[in-house]
Amino acid sequence: MTVTSQNQFAKLSPERFHALCRALVTQRPLVHCLTNEVVQEITANVLLAAGTSPAMVVAPDEVDDFARIASGLLINLGTPYPDRLEAMKRAVKTANTTQTPWVLDPVAAGVIPWRDERIDEFLALKPTVIRGNASEILAIAGMGQGGQGVDSTDSSFSALVAAQELARQTPCIVAVTGEKDYVTDGSTTIEIAGGHIMATLVVGTGCSLSALVAGFLAVDANTLEATAAAMMLAKRAEEKAFSRTQAPGSFRAAYIDALYEITQGAAQ
Amino acid sequence: MTVTSQNQFAKLSPERFHALCRALVTQRPLVHCLTNEVVQEITANVLLAAGTSPAMVVAPDEVDDFARIASGLLINLGTPYPDRLEAMKRAVKTANTTQTPWVLDPVAAGVIPWRDERIDEFLALKPTVIRGNASEILAIAGMGQGGQGVDSTDSSFSALVAAQELARQTPCIVAVTGEKDYVTDGSTTIEIAGGHIMATLVVGTGCSLSALVAGFLAVDANTLEATAAAMMLAKRAEEKAFSRTQAPGSFRAAYIDALYEITQGAAQ
Amino acid sequence: MTVTSQNQFAKLSPERFHALCRALVTQRPLVHCLTNEVVQEITANVLLAAGTSPAMVVAPDEVDDFARIASGLLINLGTPYPDRLEAMKRAVKTANTTQTPWVLDPVAAGVIPWRDERIDEFLALKPTVIRGNASEILAIAGMGQGGQGVDSTDSSFSALVAAQELARQTPCIVAVTGEKDYVTDGSTTIEIAGGHIMATLVVGTGCSLSALVAGFLAVDANTLEATAAAMMLAKRAEEKAFSRTQAPGSFRAAYIDALYEITQGAAQ
Repeated sequence: MTVTSQNQFAKLSPERFHALCRALVTQRPLVHCLTNEVVQEITANVLLAAGTSPAMVVAPDEVDDFARIASGLLINLGTPYPDRLEAMKRAVKTANTTQTPWVLDPVAAGVIPWRDERIDEFLALKPTVIRGNASEILAIAGMGQGGQGVDSTDSSFSALVAAQELARQTPCIVAVTGEKDYVTDGSTTIEIAGGHIMATLVVGTGCSLSALVAGFLAVDANTLEATAAAMMLAKRAEEKAFSRTQAPGSFRAAYIDALYEITQGAAQ
Repeated sequence: MTVTSQNQFAKLSPERFHALCRALVTQRPLVHCLTNEVVQEITANVLLAAGTSPAMVVAPDEVDDFARIASGLLINLGTPYPDRLEAMKRAVKTANTTQTPWVLDPVAAGVIPWRDERIDEFLALKPTVIRGNASEILAIAGMGQGGQGVDSTDSSFSALVAAQELARQTPCIVAVTGEKDYVTDGSTTIEIAGGHIMATLVVGTGCSLSALVAGFLAVDANTLEATAAAMMLAKRAEEKAFSRTQAPGSFRAAYIDALYEITQGAAQ
Repeated sequence: MTVTSQNQFAKLSPERFHALCRALVTQRPLVHCLTNEVVQEITANVLLAAGTSPAMVVAPDEVDDFARIASGLLINLGTPYPDRLEAMKRAVKTANTTQTPWVLDPVAAGVIPWRDERIDEFLALKPTVIRGNASEILAIAGMGQGGQGVDSTDSSFSALVAAQELARQTPCIVAVTGEKDYVTDGSTTIEIAGGHIMATLVVGTGCSLSALVAGFLAVDANTLEATAAAMMLAKRAEEKAFSRTQAPGSFRAAYIDALYEITQGAAQ
C-alpha cells in the first residue's frame, strides 16, 4: 500500500453535506457521551448547537439502560479512570448488541503505556469510527512515537497510510484530523480541506468533533460520508468563526455560533 | 383538582422582584452546589454573575462541615455516581438539621429506573424546592413517560396539575420550567412568562437556574416568591441576551452578562 | 519582621516580562494539571491561549509516567476527593524526583479542618510555589480565620507578612493575589498592581493563574520572577478585557483573548 496521490481522494459533495446537516437537525438524534472530564461542557454545547440532543449518563448502574435508547455513542479516553472505564465498557457492549454506532477517541495514544493498554481494550470491541489526530492514529496503528501530551506532533497526511491500514484491520472508519482531514474505510478516502488552526487553541474542539461524528452516524447509514460530514461541519464552522474573531476566547463562542448557523441553514 | 385557569395565576410584582435581586446582591449568600459534572463551571459563573458566592465542596469527608456554613444548597442528579450521592446525602442531612433551604433538580427523571430510585431517596428527604422541566415533574409525580434524555417532551403547562399535586404531597415548592414557568406550593401558583427558547441550546441554563433558586431562598423567607424570583431573573436575562445575539455560543456569554446587569441594576 | 514599606518592593521590569512571555510561547511547555473539577476547561483554555500545552492526566495509574515528561505541574485542591488526592501525591513525588517545578493552590484553606489536613500534607512535600488569596495564605501560615467559602475576606496586603513567613519556613515562593499581587521568597517581594476586580466574578481565573505559574516556572530558572510574570500577565489581560466589556460572561472570553494577544505580541 502506497500513499494515495492527491487526485485520488474522494470528496463529500456540498449537496450531500447539506442533506446530512438537514437530517441531523430534523432527526435530533440522542447522543450518549462518555467523555473526559475536561471537555464535557463544550461537547454538550457543540452537540446542542449542531442540532442533536446530548446526554452525559455516566454512572455504571445506568449506562446500560441509557445506551439502549441512545442513537449514537461517544467513548473518549482523555481521563480514563477505573470507574469511568467500567461505565464505558458497559455502554459499548450494549451499543454493540443494539447495533448503535459508536466512536472511539483515543486521546493521547502513544504517550503512556497504561493508557495504550486501555485503548487497545476498546479497539478490540470494534468501534464504528476512530477519530484522532495524526500522532494518535500513528500510535494505535503501531507506526508512531506519540505526540506532546494531547497535541499532535505529526501532520495528518503523514498518518494517512496508518489510517488506511487501521481501517482495514479493525475494520472500521478512521478519521485523522489536522490541517487537512482524511476519512477512510481503507479503500476509499475522503479529504476535507480548510478550517483554521485557531481551533487547536480551544480545548475540546477535537473531542467534541468526535461527538459530532456519533451524531451524524445516527442519521445516515453511510458511515464514511456521515463521518466526513462531521469533519466538514467543523472545518466550515472554524472558517466562519475566524472570519469574525482572531483570538481563542471569543473564537470558542463564534465556533459554536457557526455550527448552529450552518446546520440551521441547511434545515430550512 | 382541575387545572387552574389562566387568570387565577398569581404574579410576582416588579417591585418584589427588584427587592429580591437587591437582597441577593447585598447579602451575597454562600450557595453550596452538589451538581452534575457537566455544568459545574456555568453554574458557578451564573451564581457569581447574579451576586452570590458559589462553592462546589464535594468530598464526602468535608460536605458536612461546609453544608453547616452555607446559606443554600443545590442537589442536582444529572450524573449521580455512588461517591457523589453519598456526599449529597450527607449535605442534605446537615441542611435539614440546620434548616438550610435546599433545592432538588431531578435531571432526566422518568428515563432510567435506577436513577428514579435515587431521585425517590432525595424526595423522601423533603427538599425545600423541586425544579424540573415538564417531563421530569410529570415523572416524579407518577404521571409521565419521561423525556428524551435530559430534554422535556412535554409543555410546562401540561405538568401543572402534577406540580401542584407534588407540592402538596411532599410538601414543598415545585417549579416547572418551560415556555412559561410555574411555581406552586400546591394552592397558590405563580406564572412567569417570557424568556427565550435559545436558552435550551446552552447546556446548564436549567441546572444553574436551580442553583439560583438556592441563592434566592437564602435571602427571603417566602419560598414561593424567592423561587419565582429566580425564574423571573432567568427569563429577563434570556430576553436581554437574545436581543444581543441569535446564536447559542455568544448567547451563553450574553446570558451571564444579563444576569449581572439585572441584579446589579437592582442593587443600585 | 515588620511589613515592608511600599517603596521597598521590587518590580518586574517590562523587558523581563516581555522576555518571559516570549520564552513561554517559544518553548511551549507541557503543563500537567491536577486541578479541581469545576475549572478544568478554563484552565486548559487559559494555558492554550498563553502559549503552553496543557494536559489533564488524572488516573492514578498514569500520573507517574506523565509527570515524568511534563515541564511543570499544578496541584489545585479545590475538590480534593480520595482518588484524585492519590493521583496528586504520585505526581508530586515524581516531580520532586525529576526536579520539575510544581505549584500548590490551597483553595479554601482555613474553612474546613479536613481540607486543611490535606493541604498540610502537600505543604510537607515542598511545593516550588504556593499561590493563594489573602485568606488562604493567612490560614496556611497559621495567622488567619479563613474566607467565605472559596472567596477571600482579607486584602492581599494584610497577608503579606504571612506570605513572607511562609516562604521562609517552607521554603518556597509564595504568591498572594488580590487587589495587588505580592510574590515573595521571604526576603525579596515583588509587587504587581493593576488588574480588575471583574475577574473575581469569573470562576477559575485564580485557579488558572496558578496553572500559568507552572508554565512560567518551566521556562525560567528564576522562580521569583517567573511567578511574578504570571501575575503580571493576568493583571494586564484583566485590564485589556475590562476595556472591552464590563460584564462577566463576555469578560471571560475577552480575558482569554487578551492572554493570547499579550503573549503572542511578545513572541513577535
